[in-house]
Amino acid sequence: MSTPETMRAAVLDEPGAFELRDVPVPDPEPGEVLVRIRACGICGSDLEIRDHGWLQDGTEYPLIPGHEWTGEVVETGPETYHFEPGDRVADETHGGCGYCRNCKRGRYTACLNYGEREKGHKHYGFTVDGGYATYCAIRERNLHHLPEVLSFRAGTLVTTAACSLYGVERADVEAGDTVAILGPGPIGLTAVQCAKLRGAKDVVVTGTRESRLRVAREVGADHTVNVHESDPVEAVRELTDGVGPDVVIETAGVHETVSQAVEMVRPAGRVGIIGNPGEGETPISTQAIVNGDLDVYGVKAQGQNAAERVTKLMTRPEFRTDPIITHEFDFEDLHTAMDAFENREDGAVKVVVTM
Amino acid sequence: MSTPETMRAAVLDEPGAFELRDVPVPDPEPGEVLVRIRACGICGSDLEIRDHGWLQDGTEYPLIPGHEWTGEVVETGPETYHFEPGDRVADETHGGCGYCRNCKRGRYTACLNYGEREKGHKHYGFTVDGGYATYCAIRERNLHHLPEVLSFRAGTLVTTAACSLYGVERADVEAGDTVAILGPGPIGLTAVQCAKLRGAKDVVVTGTRESRLRVAREVGADHTVNVHESDPVEAVRELTDGVGPDVVIETAGVHETVSQAVEMVRPAGRVGIIGNPGEGETPISTQAIVNGDLDVYGVKAQGQNAAERVTKLMTRPEFRTDPIITHEFDFEDLHTAMDAFENREDGAVKVVVTM
Amino acid sequence: MSTPETMRAAVLDEPGAFELRDVPVPDPEPGEVLVRIRACGICGSDLEIRDHGWLQDGTEYPLIPGHEWTGEVVETGPETYHFEPGDRVADETHGGCGYCRNCKRGRYTACLNYGEREKGHKHYGFTVDGGYATYCAIRERNLHHLPEVLSFRAGTLVTTAACSLYGVERADVEAGDTVAILGPGPIGLTAVQCAKLRGAKDVVVTGTRESRLRVAREVGADHTVNVHESDPVEAVRELTDGVGPDVVIETAGVHETVSQAVEMVRPAGRVGIIGNPGEGETPISTQAIVNGDLDVYGVKAQGQNAAERVTKLMTRPEFRTDPIITHEFDFEDLHTAMDAFENREDGAVKVVVTM
Amino acid sequence: MSTPETMRAAVLDEPGAFELRDVPVPDPEPGEVLVRIRACGICGSDLEIRDHGWLQDGTEYPLIPGHEWTGEVVETGPETYHFEPGDRVADETHGGCGYCRNCKRGRYTACLNYGEREKGHKHYGFTVDGGYATYCAIRERNLHHLPEVLSFRAGTLVTTAACSLYGVERADVEAGDTVAILGPGPIGLTAVQCAKLRGAKDVVVTGTRESRLRVAREVGADHTVNVHESDPVEAVRELTDGVGPDVVIETAGVHETVSQAVEMVRPAGRVGIIGNPGEGETPISTQAIVNGDLDVYGVKAQGQNAAERVTKLMTRPEFRTDPIITHEFDFEDLHTAMDAFENREDGAVKVVVTM
Repeated sequence: MSTPETMRAAVLDEPGAFELRDVPVPDPEPGEVLVRIRACGICGSDLEIRDHGWLQDGTEYPLIPGHEWTGEVVETGPETYHFEPGDRVADETHGGCGYCRNCKRGRYTACLNYGEREKGHKHYGFTVDGGYATYCAIRERNLHHLPEVLSFRAGTLVTTAACSLYGVERADVEAGDTVAILGPGPIGLTAVQCAKLRGAKDVVVTGTRESRLRVAREVGADHTVNVHESDPVEAVRELTDGVGPDVVIETAGVHETVSQAVEMVRPAGRVGIIGNPGEGETPISTQAIVNGDLDVYGVKAQGQNAAERVTKLMTRPEFRTDPIITHEFDFEDLHTAMDAFENREDGAVKVVVTM
Repeated sequence: MSTPETMRAAVLDEPGAFELRDVPVPDPEPGEVLVRIRACGICGSDLEIRDHGWLQDGTEYPLIPGHEWTGEVVETGPETYHFEPGDRVADETHGGCGYCRNCKRGRYTACLNYGEREKGHKHYGFTVDGGYATYCAIRERNLHHLPEVLSFRAGTLVTTAACSLYGVERADVEAGDTVAILGPGPIGLTAVQCAKLRGAKDVVVTGTRESRLRVAREVGADHTVNVHESDPVEAVRELTDGVGPDVVIETAGVHETVSQAVEMVRPAGRVGIIGNPGEGETPISTQAIVNGDLDVYGVKAQGQNAAERVTKLMTRPEFRTDPIITHEFDFEDLHTAMDAFENREDGAVKVVVTM
Repeated sequence: MSTPETMRAAVLDEPGAFELRDVPVPDPEPGEVLVRIRACGICGSDLEIRDHGWLQDGTEYPLIPGHEWTGEVVETGPETYHFEPGDRVADETHGGCGYCRNCKRGRYTACLNYGEREKGHKHYGFTVDGGYATYCAIRERNLHHLPEVLSFRAGTLVTTAACSLYGVERADVEAGDTVAILGPGPIGLTAVQCAKLRGAKDVVVTGTRESRLRVAREVGADHTVNVHESDPVEAVRELTDGVGPDVVIETAGVHETVSQAVEMVRPAGRVGIIGNPGEGETPISTQAIVNGDLDVYGVKAQGQNAAERVTKLMTRPEFRTDPIITHEFDFEDLHTAMDAFENREDGAVKVVVTM
Repeated sequence: MSTPETMRAAVLDEPGAFELRDVPVPDPEPGEVLVRIRACGICGSDLEIRDHGWLQDGTEYPLIPGHEWTGEVVETGPETYHFEPGDRVADETHGGCGYCRNCKRGRYTACLNYGEREKGHKHYGFTVDGGYATYCAIRERNLHHLPEVLSFRAGTLVTTAACSLYGVERADVEAGDTVAILGPGPIGLTAVQCAKLRGAKDVVVTGTRESRLRVAREVGADHTVNVHESDPVEAVRELTDGVGPDVVIETAGVHETVSQAVEMVRPAGRVGIIGNPGEGETPISTQAIVNGDLDVYGVKAQGQNAAERVTKLMTRPEFRTDPIITHEFDFEDLHTAMDAFENREDGAVKVVVTM
């Protein structure tokens, strides 16, 4: 299969101007390989980027978004060592500068040169071209081998689940723990599974939509709390003999749930915040943090190579992707797919496009 | 020296009713020893307790406050093993239940049975009698041997410095780090020294009073920022090439500085919050926490046996207590001493009473 | 049910002199409760103690051994707070002095006053009376609530599984890890389950007896290696693409397997050594440790409150005790039970006595 | 200053064949910069390489050894971002593949592709050309900015001190700790300083040469033990009230001291092994490791970006390089310099050549 000159791509010329068109297939630079993309998941941040641009600096327009994809290596650039044509792969979206004190210790999602391409940083699908295209040129260290038992479709959850795993690891979920997960979206639903697979005894999920809470129970949540029916802090406290859960993982990304996370966790408990409410300030009880001797961890995407670990964890037969990936569209119908995701049509949770 | 029947003590009958009087010397219960107290430091929380009661539950009135004291063991109760009469000691204020999942892992300042004497918890000077007295009966695990080179007066800083050390350890100050310390009170001034003694390269202290910032420089701060003259976030950022310090230790205990701490630290940096602003909510940028992949640690007093380590650290000749302990009064003048501390008379930083 | 004056107990008058007889029921001292024991597991160390005495110092003869037991609280001593009559419980064998720098940080199995009863240390069943009796007086912090779903019989595995969990936690088994477990005894077989429940992808167990390796597969091992048929280091390396497992847990307690553990683990891997080969030196490749930047952890029993976590983990339906507890005898037949265990009669793995 | 075509270099054609001659100045490849070297320290491993070759695989002959050097950037290759001509720099010797699960988490000294240049690994001075030359082409992530206050001469200790710091950090030296350092060579002597600067209270150094022990005291050791005069395990135990030091750092690299390290450390203590005794097995008491619940860490060179931290730590005025760098030679006299180092002429500790 020889690589064509042009490819289909969803191009964002500027926030608000997003269209599918033909563009040249990129050449892999030193350290990069070229991948024929087969499937790409739609993430809430894609909608944000499409409409308003990415909230961190450094985006280069026109931009091809998309950062939850799988595919097959078709070509390797100079100074590549770890992949060869035919390898099935999943991407990792953050490409740190590789030099700063964070990158050199595996904290590349907090690269000190974020957004500065002239210092070697690349955030695929955010600051440089990503996966809403039939081809992508990407650094080797942003790729992972996709195990045979994972389909291209299932593999689009690697990025999402890697966030969840990184959160579960940073918040150090331990055997026997009770874990509250705030928000039953794709991150919350994979966090349920990461927590259980790390030995949590009881996982409780809070959310607003009964349909998603049902999925949460399907993938392993022991309890769910509909926040329209009960106060989540009280309800979770009750489930934990009034003490509070050992760990809270916030995935909803709204100020209110961040406040709740700190309020509900037990003394000496740990809070992992994956969801990002964006601009504005969250009213937080510092007293709860100090008197509780709490650990509160920001969880920026998937650091410390969590994506590789998750590709292995997802081969465990207990790990369920089917209840989460609810819809699949052809890439040419990307706009329709995004609408379905945005409006949660037919109970849409995660929506993927294939190409 | 035989133990008398009565002792002098400063007794709080209820918030607002605080007086020195004669009371019976307590008998040590199983696991406790009796100490002849020689010096006790005054802490901001003592004033809070005196006027409004302690903000956590469980106080038993009448209460003898005071939790930063040194003295000499005079008697040992049944089932004591580790001290004998004549031993010079410093106290550790938090006495966990010894049973809960936090206590069994050294997180006793976050004991799940806080304030419940009927479950074995004792917070000396807060929920049960402390050190504003000539004698105190206290559990062995709340005492530390006071090294010979430390005077009773200098040793009153053990509790304070142990808070600082616990904060510096939780926030994992590393060799070569730049550390910002918000607030130049006794905790901040010992935190400067703990950070330097753990290998920090640059320590910058922010505060409002030039006299205290001068003390900060005297005990090792490399830079100070008077927040009346410069915006502390900008000033600290400038001192760190725009990146932000590796670690921020908040000791001022006001909402504003907690917000600043999160805002100023570098990506993948660590924040230790020792100061407790009490009731109310702090407006915090969750986005900074998440995008920065930050660690934010509540620091509840002195967990993980930090007090023992600090008794050793304080024997290092570099460790300075003199510039911090500015005033000494006789115990009988406790009210005057408290006023001097509260009004910061003559540049008072830490004020001790001796008995 | 009123407590009788005497009880049946297996008493070791000195190594070699071990008999069942009637002895007085002990009175609980301050901090202790009295438990009516219902079941007790037999451990290899019991045989060692019976024949040669315990290899660490501090045993008080006559001694009642036995440290893997469950029962019901019947009486509470003075200054007890956390249990009441009727509570179902499992024991934790190590009772540190509660004061030393190890105890105060949860490392009580490495108490600096090990064996010194006059400093508050008690190792139940080793230095002070344990569970081969119908009653035992024991400190509250050496007891855990036994969840309803665990029978007294199943609960005898708490101590064993807590060792395994502590090892798996110290060696930081991570999601997706390949874990080699050396030795398919009770510790190895519970370690398999702890590793899988912490997210390991592949667990391989090495051993000499096909019957036990079959049990290993039954409780979740993905691969087994019979060391009579293949070289374990080579075989495990092969299963890991030549790289070596991420984690090795040594449970066999012989010098040879400790050497193998260090040799087989991948660079930057972690080794947890639970098995204790006793006197003598193990030939270890320091070069492998240094060039591999390895972590090698001694795992002394069940520190950091692992026993509590394991009582919760064992309620997970995946956790299997049945294939491990192969034999049950009446307490009066303790000598027969010990023989069955020692000679591994009828494929005996874990043998319990009930009373 | 324009770069010449040729440079002086000490070239190892094969083990045993080592000479200074003119060779072409290398061109920096993508990601590399070219450095005009100013000074290079001689390390024991250089002698090993010279005579027998490097003990790990992957060396490409002819090889220019040398891995403790400083210099000035003169040219930048394509895709470099972080240095520019004129920058003063110190090198970091290990260049991992950047892709494997160890590299991506900062454990690049344990790169899974060690020695495989075709997979992107480079160990400068060991498997690819290093610093015994007037120029070296090197990846940016193997360079650190050399602070102004450090001379090129002093900066040659960065690599050595980074080993020591990494060891001190892995073994988690804490405030107030007693630390035993086995071996008073350059690593031991910088380890003394790293330990003290991380808050150790007492540092004791063991060794065979009084002259070096004197240097140890000069740079901060509180005690020294001449192993010709006293048994080191007993002597160190005595200095620690019979308990053993909190941390032992082994730097001598002989089997005997590795055995001693495990034997002498206190229960729940930590051992960092930096010295590599090479082939052969060390007789180690596994019983001490298990009963002590010990942590034993291999310390492979300078992982986790320790070299950057050490460049900052070395600017602390307390950090002494003068007593350690005892001799300086012109690069043309490299053979003489190596002899002086090997034979420890005139009390030679660290010997540098300048160019």
